[in-house]
Amino acid sequence: MRIGIAGLGTVGGGTVRLLQGKADLLAARAGRRVEVVAASARDPGRERGLDLGGVRFERDALALAAAPDIDAVVELIGGAGGVALDLVRAALESGKAVVTANKAMLALHGGGLALLAERQGVPLLFEAAVAGGIPIVKSLREGLAANRVRRVYGILNGTCNYILTQMRETGRDFAEVLAEAQGLGYAEADPSTDVDGIDAAHKLALLAAIAFGGLPSFEGIHVEGIRRVSAQDIAYADALGYRIKLLGVARRTEAGVEQRLHPCMVRKDAAIAQVEGVFNGIVVEGDEAGEVVHEGRGAGAGPTASAVVADLIDIARGRWGPVFGVPAAGLEPLRPSPLQDHAGRHYVRLMVQDRPGVLAEIAAAFRDHDVSIESLLQQGRDPGRTVAIVLITHEAAERAMRGALAQIGRLEAVEEPPCMIRIEAL
Amino acid sequence: MRIGIAGLGTVGGGTVRLLQGKADLLAARAGRRVEVVAASARDPGRERGLDLGGVRFERDALALAAAPDIDAVVELIGGAGGVALDLVRAALESGKAVVTANKAMLALHGGGLALLAERQGVPLLFEAAVAGGIPIVKSLREGLAANRVRRVYGILNGTCNYILTQMRETGRDFAEVLAEAQGLGYAEADPSTDVDGIDAAHKLALLAAIAFGGLPSFEGIHVEGIRRVSAQDIAYADALGYRIKLLGVARRTEAGVEQRLHPCMVRKDAAIAQVEGVFNGIVVEGDEAGEVVHEGRGAGAGPTASAVVADLIDIARGRWGPVFGVPAAGLEPLRPSPLQDHAGRHYVRLMVQDRPGVLAEIAAAFRDHDVSIESLLQQGRDPGRTVAIVLITHEAAERAMRGALAQIGRLEAVEEPPCMIRIEAL
Repeated sequence: MRIGIAGLGTVGGGTVRLLQGKADLLAARAGRRVEVVAASARDPGRERGLDLGGVRFERDALALAAAPDIDAVVELIGGAGGVALDLVRAALESGKAVVTANKAMLALHGGGLALLAERQGVPLLFEAAVAGGIPIVKSLREGLAANRVRRVYGILNGTCNYILTQMRETGRDFAEVLAEAQGLGYAEADPSTDVDGIDAAHKLALLAAIAFGGLPSFEGIHVEGIRRVSAQDIAYADALGYRIKLLGVARRTEAGVEQRLHPCMVRKDAAIAQVEGVFNGIVVEGDEAGEVVHEGRGAGAGPTASAVVADLIDIARGRWGPVFGVPAAGLEPLRPSPLQDHAGRHYVRLMVQDRPGVLAEIAAAFRDHDVSIESLLQQGRDPGRTVAIVLITHEAAERAMRGALAQIGRLEAVEEPPCMIRIEAL
Repeated sequence: MRIGIAGLGTVGGGTVRLLQGKADLLAARAGRRVEVVAASARDPGRERGLDLGGVRFERDALALAAAPDIDAVVELIGGAGGVALDLVRAALESGKAVVTANKAMLALHGGGLALLAERQGVPLLFEAAVAGGIPIVKSLREGLAANRVRRVYGILNGTCNYILTQMRETGRDFAEVLAEAQGLGYAEADPSTDVDGIDAAHKLALLAAIAFGGLPSFEGIHVEGIRRVSAQDIAYADALGYRIKLLGVARRTEAGVEQRLHPCMVRKDAAIAQVEGVFNGIVVEGDEAGEVVHEGRGAGAGPTASAVVADLIDIARGRWGPVFGVPAAGLEPLRPSPLQDHAGRHYVRLMVQDRPGVLAEIAAAFRDHDVSIESLLQQGRDPGRTVAIVLITHEAAERAMRGALAQIGRLEAVEEPPCMIRIEAL
């Protein structure tokens, strides 16, 4: 099988090295040799420490789609549209198999690309787009295909999980830990795609599509990042028996599929709470299999190349089917279930003036919106100064919480916008 | 796709119910309808709460292999040989696809069956044979196919893990917890296949075959069960920061593949230590992907039927390849690596008379075999009575440990055979 690789960055370089370094082993597993015959990259002259002798260099990535000597195109350029999308479309149109790690492209254009691939009768595989070295796409699409999934949730961004873990372990605040993570190369110079939850939401859109039998619907995802998580909240969470994790959660409801990506509190002893540092973890709740937990490295050259090459082996073996598990022609974008209807317990932290009557005003606001309080913690007493009130609600709808918190935010004694973190029942 | 199911016990009944109850969903995922057309069972008349109208009942399981209206045979009879083996052979010989949950049969006869299936050009799939609802066979064979596996290890028997977890949580001894587990239906009346490690070793043989590119070699596995694990050792382990788990471990060495199934001490904070109760967990260490952890339910009607039906969907989609990942004709049984050469740290508990000089004799025995002691704990003082000495060794070879413990066992002051538990480095 002859491969053309577009993009020779960390993952592209790792993929070339893997294919060359284990050629015999991979040939046995794939049933035929898998060879890189052509590659494209923005800077052809750059030193990459790769042996590219015998690999034709194309200045224009689109040439890979047209080349008659290429069976499968590996797209590692990135970006939701642009050259990546043009290349994948052109490759599918010319009847080539495609492997991609491009979560943004698939989250936004996955439906159309799946239709195209299936019309052309060629595979479009994307194990590397979600959680790097963890074969979660295969596990969900094939391994758990006998299940009606109730909920799939996970830690889908290693940068955010590293930051949250460091914040907890060192007690430092977000900005400081982010700066350190940037210095270590764990976070990008412009960290927004990671810390604002966009990257993880792209991955969630793909998992939800497979789990719930629809085309990806990125617009249907409620996305909040981790910039507003404070060291203080992490410490309170710990005291209350929780960890704060940036979770992507997709769940079937009566109205459709609820998709949300936001900081969550999870019980310390839950499997997902044990996933720390740069690791990713995904839990699938199936009606037959029960909870199945997957954990591993979500990024890096080795893990991501491992996923790319697994897809290539599947293609070589003919071991593939519809892009999202069922034929795209019969699917519609997932119907969003409004977050307003989401019900759960909530953590709330309020910074208030310590004076008589404040608590009564707060309690009244919750009562007015039918939110009942499970436990409440007021630390220290410091009359006339600002103190924290921390509370956990009983199960309440998002709509009610927002109403109560808006009312509380308007109270004179409340000095900062209320901080609210949803507790995920696990 | 027309299915014949042999065996209508818990798993067989669950499989029929799953195929009937989700016929439309499964048809979308499989690309065609998957229908049970025939079944066989020892007792045809038994009430099973199944709708078997339209399902032909065969008294002789072998009739399923011969029936021209059956495309795939599901073997859920069990037993390493006998009818199960005859049926699978006959089905493959008549060109039918086979799905089986039979770990014993595959561990002992998997090589020959794989050769037969591949010669016939038909699939032989066995996701349900290892760890029930966790799609570990697929993950290892396909999802991680780009990796050279360094080590694969896991908790492969839920009964043993339940017993060990209960022992730790309640402080009770093996016999008492086993009796309770039998009462609850978590352990069989004759528990030996589980508690002596045989069942888990069968599964390990299959994982090792896929991971290390050989035919299963059950005879090459060193097997010890959990009967000799005492409440005392579990308590000491806890105090030292460990949990005791019955682990199956397969690891590549210079000599071949080391396969062992025995109680291990693992660090409390290791992912595998968090797998408690009836759950199973498997960790694959790949050279590209790093550590990938899988956890879920290893038994029961739902999880096992989930695995059986996933295999059927793969067959319907044509998504299959060689039985153990590479063609069986090119494989040999895994070459065993002698346990004597295994090196690791060890926990040792000695019951000794509390009198001067005993420790010196013990220390001398370790020194004579070049085993050095990392830490030592002698609890209480009780001159003239029996006390426990607990120690952890530095890394030492199995051979040296056995020599030292044999010498120690012969000391007059040592009142019970030494208890040794290997510490698995994770």
